[in-house]
Amino acid sequence: MTAPTTKVDATLLERRQRLLGPAYRLFYDEPLHIVRGEGVWLTVADGRRYLDLYNNVPHVGHCRPEVVEAICRQAAELNTHTRYLHSNVVDYAERLLGLLPDDLNTVMFSCTGTEANELALRIAREVTNARGIIVTEFAYHGNSQLIADISTEDTPPERRPDYVETVPFPDCYRGIHRDEDAAERYAAHIDDAVARLAARGIKPAAFVVDTISSSSGVVEPPAGYLQFAAARARAAGALLIADEVQPGFGRTGRHFWGFEADKVVPDITTMGKPMGNGHPLAATVVRRELLDAFAKRTGYFNTFGGNPVSAAAGLAVLDVIESDGLQKNALQVGSYLRAKIESLSERFAAIGDVRGHGLFLAIDLVRDRQSREPATALARTLVNGLKERGVLTNTIGPHANVLKLRPPMVFSADNADTFLQAFAEALEDAPA
Amino acid sequence: MTAPTTKVDATLLERRQRLLGPAYRLFYDEPLHIVRGEGVWLTVADGRRYLDLYNNVPHVGHCRPEVVEAICRQAAELNTHTRYLHSNVVDYAERLLGLLPDDLNTVMFSCTGTEANELALRIAREVTNARGIIVTEFAYHGNSQLIADISTEDTPPERRPDYVETVPFPDCYRGIHRDEDAAERYAAHIDDAVARLAARGIKPAAFVVDTISSSSGVVEPPAGYLQFAAARARAAGALLIADEVQPGFGRTGRHFWGFEADKVVPDITTMGKPMGNGHPLAATVVRRELLDAFAKRTGYFNTFGGNPVSAAAGLAVLDVIESDGLQKNALQVGSYLRAKIESLSERFAAIGDVRGHGLFLAIDLVRDRQSREPATALARTLVNGLKERGVLTNTIGPHANVLKLRPPMVFSADNADTFLQAFAEALEDAPA
Repeated sequence: MTAPTTKVDATLLERRQRLLGPAYRLFYDEPLHIVRGEGVWLTVADGRRYLDLYNNVPHVGHCRPEVVEAICRQAAELNTHTRYLHSNVVDYAERLLGLLPDDLNTVMFSCTGTEANELALRIAREVTNARGIIVTEFAYHGNSQLIADISTEDTPPERRPDYVETVPFPDCYRGIHRDEDAAERYAAHIDDAVARLAARGIKPAAFVVDTISSSSGVVEPPAGYLQFAAARARAAGALLIADEVQPGFGRTGRHFWGFEADKVVPDITTMGKPMGNGHPLAATVVRRELLDAFAKRTGYFNTFGGNPVSAAAGLAVLDVIESDGLQKNALQVGSYLRAKIESLSERFAAIGDVRGHGLFLAIDLVRDRQSREPATALARTLVNGLKERGVLTNTIGPHANVLKLRPPMVFSADNADTFLQAFAEALEDAPA
Repeated sequence: MTAPTTKVDATLLERRQRLLGPAYRLFYDEPLHIVRGEGVWLTVADGRRYLDLYNNVPHVGHCRPEVVEAICRQAAELNTHTRYLHSNVVDYAERLLGLLPDDLNTVMFSCTGTEANELALRIAREVTNARGIIVTEFAYHGNSQLIADISTEDTPPERRPDYVETVPFPDCYRGIHRDEDAAERYAAHIDDAVARLAARGIKPAAFVVDTISSSSGVVEPPAGYLQFAAARARAAGALLIADEVQPGFGRTGRHFWGFEADKVVPDITTMGKPMGNGHPLAATVVRRELLDAFAKRTGYFNTFGGNPVSAAAGLAVLDVIESDGLQKNALQVGSYLRAKIESLSERFAAIGDVRGHGLFLAIDLVRDRQSREPATALARTLVNGLKERGVLTNTIGPHANVLKLRPPMVFSADNADTFLQAFAEALEDAPA
């Protein structure tokens, strides 16, 4: 890591490394010291402004006034837990469930996507009386022990517990199946995973899947995959848990939830990051009858989960998504941006694939279009080149060669043009 | 559960039960619909005000203006994650570590006590290359799979994984050792737990202990116990993890942390509930050298953990504890309250034991002082009787016969008198 630009930052960096320790990581060769956020813009300590195409947590824009105001108003009035009655958590539950299929009719609140997935797995294991978890390769679902165990991006095969089995994420650009039958072929791997678990005497409790996989490189499953996968998982006695932490809340423009692309209704769905626009808020949504077995055995209490302030933040986020038409904005601006990037691919051979929908897009960078060899070094060069030009992105995927474009949902066509110009310049300047 | 008092609440209750499902529980025979909080007071929908002796999360008082203001100011300026530099998280880390022994020199932030304990156990397992966890009976440490597994209050022996072993919490009033050697005798159970793990081929990674156990009935270990326990755990290769979620931040008046009562320095300590006065904020504090093995294997990222708003809330809480002298207030008011309750025990034979320090007190209710038979029904009657008289408390402990007194730290001697009068009346009115 090179030295940061100012003396203040050098001190801050040294103190941070000393006090927070070596498990904390920073973005960029020269880390950014950000001090202010507004809409799609982030401002650093020396006053320079960056266009943010990275952060999906500030879903309705950094420091969106309506959300800030809702938090302030409620924090000044009451912030307590769910063992007293309060209308906020009930109103928010009703509003959120109204955006989901009828069968997904009960919601439980927590603070992080990790906690939402923990609760989903605990319920699935209780309902199925099984402990096996099938998950996709190079998945990321959170940071607790159980969720790190199934986060195959971070936990290599030799460190996975016996109850974890994997299937390839259905990637038709780089994956092992790319033909018309890919959806069915990928889903069939679930049978193999079930068989491998059975050989160890373990029954599957759940198939956990990102309905669009960010960690795999922003990969959308081929049409039909989630339906085929759900059928095979359920045939083996497992539940389908759809992790909507990344694709949910209208990001793809086409649908409010990722699973809607396939007209499948998961047994449980989990959500987090964008729900509270940065306020810690997450949820596990589940068919009511699945909860009965769980609730007979144990209650669920989460000290901060579903408190009146969190619920106020969640309600304000839904208000802004609706009042600003942000799902439609994602569709329109995202389509424009994707089309423009596709045009750039005529000039730049390094653009191997442009994929995604709405404001959840990816540029897969290659050293050669035929072989699709990942251009990992180029991707890193571009991330830093874009940063020098005032644009924040990052790489993702098993080869870290994919540029991930996932801005706040208030991103405009003008913002897209700003990115496109910087991106073209950065590509031109990149060493061949 | 009897019907709530108003039609509005009946509707709210029905909607809540339908939308949040059966795993959510409410306090009281007639649940409270709280709408406003201020200091030690909570106000319900019909305007009635209750003195809060239950809630420890609003540590510096419900809706404490300085904390609300800090949250609002920072939420309007920037709320992002720890992969950029920001001074709040570093300033807060420095401030917090300054309140801890020198050896506990590195802090990692998360959102809940569950997450803090998850991280502690992941680090302990990595460092020791072992997986066994020794924990006290009737412990509560959180709600994720791993932490529920070791939360022996909720998970009965037949459902505990093979890596969990228990020791009795050192309770000298109701426990199996009550003599002068109790501290050593209780600590010796750790050797037995290690042996039982060894018989299953499992090495111990950690002994996890509340330095004061709320779930056991607000029980303080006898002097020396934590030292003896640490020595035995370490001799077996395990780390000592002190869970300070309940006793931390000056609540006992005597010390800022529970473990300081015994002059022991844990290898890892975890904290949560009161840190952000209700804003989701938690931390795992660890000796730096223990982190190196963990960080070599994996980074740790928590989307919302340590964000600038959480850190601002944490800093404001520390400011108020200091400016208001709240640790000293806890000592003074707590000593006054405890002495007055002890005097009441001359009038009321049901008061079997009064224990605790500062604003973390317990009244152990008995049917007979000699046999110490728990007065569970009386405890429930008193909780509802106190509520009718405008005072909020609750029961705790394996027999639910202990009244837990754990108010916000701004609790005054006047507030204590209000409680004492209501308590004496409720005792007088209770059926013999």
